Amino acid sequence: MLKNKHLLGLENYPADDIQTIIDTSFGFREVLDRPIKKVPSLQGKTIVNLFFEPSTRTRISFELAQKRLSADTVNFTAGSSSLKKGESFKDTVQNIEAMKIDAIVMRHPTPGAPLHLTKYVEAIIVNAGDGTHEHPTQAILDMMSLQEQFGKIAGLKVGIIGDIAHSRVALSNIYGLIALGAEVTLCGPATLIPPYIEELGVNISYNVDEVLDWADAVNVLRIQMERMGIGLFPSVREYRSLFGITTERLEKHKKNLVVMHPGPMNRGVEIDSAVADGKNAIILDQVLNGVASRMAILYLLLGGKPLNE
Amino acid sequence: MLKNKHLLGLENYPADDIQTIIDTSFGFREVLDRPIKKVPSLQGKTIVNLFFEPSTRTRISFELAQKRLSADTVNFTAGSSSLKKGESFKDTVQNIEAMKIDAIVMRHPTPGAPLHLTKYVEAIIVNAGDGTHEHPTQAILDMMSLQEQFGKIAGLKVGIIGDIAHSRVALSNIYGLIALGAEVTLCGPATLIPPYIEELGVNISYNVDEVLDWADAVNVLRIQMERMGIGLFPSVREYRSLFGITTERLEKHKKNLVVMHPGPMNRGVEIDSAVADGKNAIILDQVLNGVASRMAILYLLLGGKPLNE
Amino acid sequence: MLKNKHLLGLENYPADDIQTIIDTSFGFREVLDRPIKKVPSLQGKTIVNLFFEPSTRTRISFELAQKRLSADTVNFTAGSSSLKKGESFKDTVQNIEAMKIDAIVMRHPTPGAPLHLTKYVEAIIVNAGDGTHEHPTQAILDMMSLQEQFGKIAGLKVGIIGDIAHSRVALSNIYGLIALGAEVTLCGPATLIPPYIEELGVNISYNVDEVLDWADAVNVLRIQMERMGIGLFPSVREYRSLFGITTERLEKHKKNLVVMHPGPMNRGVEIDSAVADGKNAIILDQVLNGVASRMAILYLLLGGKPLNE
Repeated sequence: MLKNKHLLGLENYPADDIQTIIDTSFGFREVLDRPIKKVPSLQGKTIVNLFFEPSTRTRISFELAQKRLSADTVNFTAGSSSLKKGESFKDTVQNIEAMKIDAIVMRHPTPGAPLHLTKYVEAIIVNAGDGTHEHPTQAILDMMSLQEQFGKIAGLKVGIIGDIAHSRVALSNIYGLIALGAEVTLCGPATLIPPYIEELGVNISYNVDEVLDWADAVNVLRIQMERMGIGLFPSVREYRSLFGITTERLEKHKKNLVVMHPGPMNRGVEIDSAVADGKNAIILDQVLNGVASRMAILYLLLGGKPLNE
Repeated sequence: MLKNKHLLGLENYPADDIQTIIDTSFGFREVLDRPIKKVPSLQGKTIVNLFFEPSTRTRISFELAQKRLSADTVNFTAGSSSLKKGESFKDTVQNIEAMKIDAIVMRHPTPGAPLHLTKYVEAIIVNAGDGTHEHPTQAILDMMSLQEQFGKIAGLKVGIIGDIAHSRVALSNIYGLIALGAEVTLCGPATLIPPYIEELGVNISYNVDEVLDWADAVNVLRIQMERMGIGLFPSVREYRSLFGITTERLEKHKKNLVVMHPGPMNRGVEIDSAVADGKNAIILDQVLNGVASRMAILYLLLGGKPLNE
Repeated sequence: MLKNKHLLGLENYPADDIQTIIDTSFGFREVLDRPIKKVPSLQGKTIVNLFFEPSTRTRISFELAQKRLSADTVNFTAGSSSLKKGESFKDTVQNIEAMKIDAIVMRHPTPGAPLHLTKYVEAIIVNAGDGTHEHPTQAILDMMSLQEQFGKIAGLKVGIIGDIAHSRVALSNIYGLIALGAEVTLCGPATLIPPYIEELGVNISYNVDEVLDWADAVNVLRIQMERMGIGLFPSVREYRSLFGITTERLEKHKKNLVVMHPGPMNRGVEIDSAVADGKNAIILDQVLNGVASRMAILYLLLGGKPLNE
């Protein structure tokens, strides 16, 4: 049984619960390798996917997780909604909840929106990304993928490379990795690493080669092209030359560095195609682990027994 | 067994069938309180939701009703359709029906569109709102909610407040409530109460305080802001002061008046937030009863036995 | 067991496999006449519908086929996707596949897109229409409908009328009908019949009355109005008078000519309303056979045993 009712973020989330989720995820990963990739665990439960931002992989990943747990799912996207008629966000979700929803998976552009939601609905809330704040299910699938590669998280050296300041993936990974005993080094343009962030217990480097030398694994963040040209970012070409995980850069490092990316990738910008498709990358494993870990998260939050007990 | 094949509206709908639907709805309401909120009643049946207007609560309510009856559902919204290619409405629905659909739930901006549909398809049609004409499932959930509060409909005094002339919710409620023996008083700006409407057997008042004094329950209609400023409506401020269900106005009345609203609400216009969230309001019960009554409607129309027999 | 892993088109597709699909389709057609139109054949399988073009009937037909086989389905349309964020098509589909998808049904405006897809995913691919190239499931349902009418395909005389040059329906029908031993005559404006096409073993005629005299059945193609006025097409009025299947034209021919149309129809252009709704037309049978044959296709590709064995 998890200690928190919701999964809003990994800040202050109990380390043993993160571990329980990861361990349970491996159980569901096995289900996904069966010919019939489905279990009846959440039959008769209803989960609503409330997406206020466009998304491919996260929405489909959650939807598959739900269907493979035999839950009933309803998709709600901002465009098709009463919000167009001027109804408040609060009324919209309270109305949806009044229909006896068991859980709400929400993506929203505003940091804190899922927390806000918990104040006026009774349903279990899972944060599927809230602006630049957190994306806890992404961090859990990243950690599950690391555990799959290395057997454990404690003691691992993990680099996170890119626009740290605006990345919900980075922040959730930092909280989770530190909680489980990994060492974390952040790397990116100085304009995109917030000054206070060392207080979270991470190292900072502005030299990506140094980080590649040091790390067991790197998590390469997506560059949000729309932030280019507003003073925070160098040009695409300069970014690639300074921080891109290029084939040349990777070949300079002998060891079996593990390369992760949360997607969608800008091939040729933050990561070269040859790297993304090469032997170091576990990017498609992350995607599969995403379904497994979202199954574990929904299963545990909705009352299932941990598989590691 | 209901006497009519379709549910197009409550005009001339048999009173005992309305009562059968309401009674059966309470049976499904119990299902919604179980941990596994699902019954196999409509397994192997296919229901298509044809929505030609945006909708949150009505579409999700129907979709949940269908899934909790174990029906297969297909959603079709106007935007994604062959209608874009210039195909006629008739061809679109005949083609969908040819795929062996059991029922079609339709929302359409044109009054009479669901009736029109019955002329060239064999499937059972449920009207989910046709322009300013009828919204029979909303009226049934409203009556179910009244029966839940008062035990019966006959003899109840119900006020309906707002833009009566353009409200499909009002019209369906009038037909249903009169059929079941309630007394109905309509209240709103004189420009928005059609002259002929007294022939339906209702009272008319232009004084909302008088109606609040008289009524056991009031159904507060949504003000459609897009009708403001075209001569029919006073200003928002004037509307609120003359017809709004404000906290002050409600406090003047000692009794336990029941306040309903079909949603989405304009808080601070036709209803104050404190009223909407207060002890008199049963707005979220209406939402839950909406799922239960839509389960009952689909179940009965598709051949299920009434639960009150 | 079908010889090809995918169904990309009917060019070079084994004739006995086409026949197996058609025969199996009749088995599923019987399922669609039952009160419970559902079989558990694909339980625990996941099928993704990837639609890069708007579609009503084809998407709904596939979705119903999938649900009636008890598969889990996920819909992905271009509008809601990471493609908006600049992700490559390849990354999008590889990511979706990494979630352990069994089959992908794809519609795409680019000829060859489904073939391209097979190069970097492991899932079974079904082409639901790729630009002006092929639409094999449409041709199979057309042939199933012919077999339903005539008992067999071999020796049948089939006319295909309209814009042959831009029609994926025409091309797939040509390949399939020739493979199964039918005689095919193409008919349309000379500008819209490609010069090389006789090499496929078909006859060409520019006289629709001649074709109606000769044929057992005609497949009337949809005129794509957006191609009008760019020099290839006569006017709508002239097209109708030269090539339209009008009531007058049909009445001149005594025999029971079977009229097919893949939809959506332009009534009054390539086909008159009275013909479309008349006794010669089997257009709605085609729609129903579409669901049955898509069930057969998915069932056989995903490992089911042919029903004619």
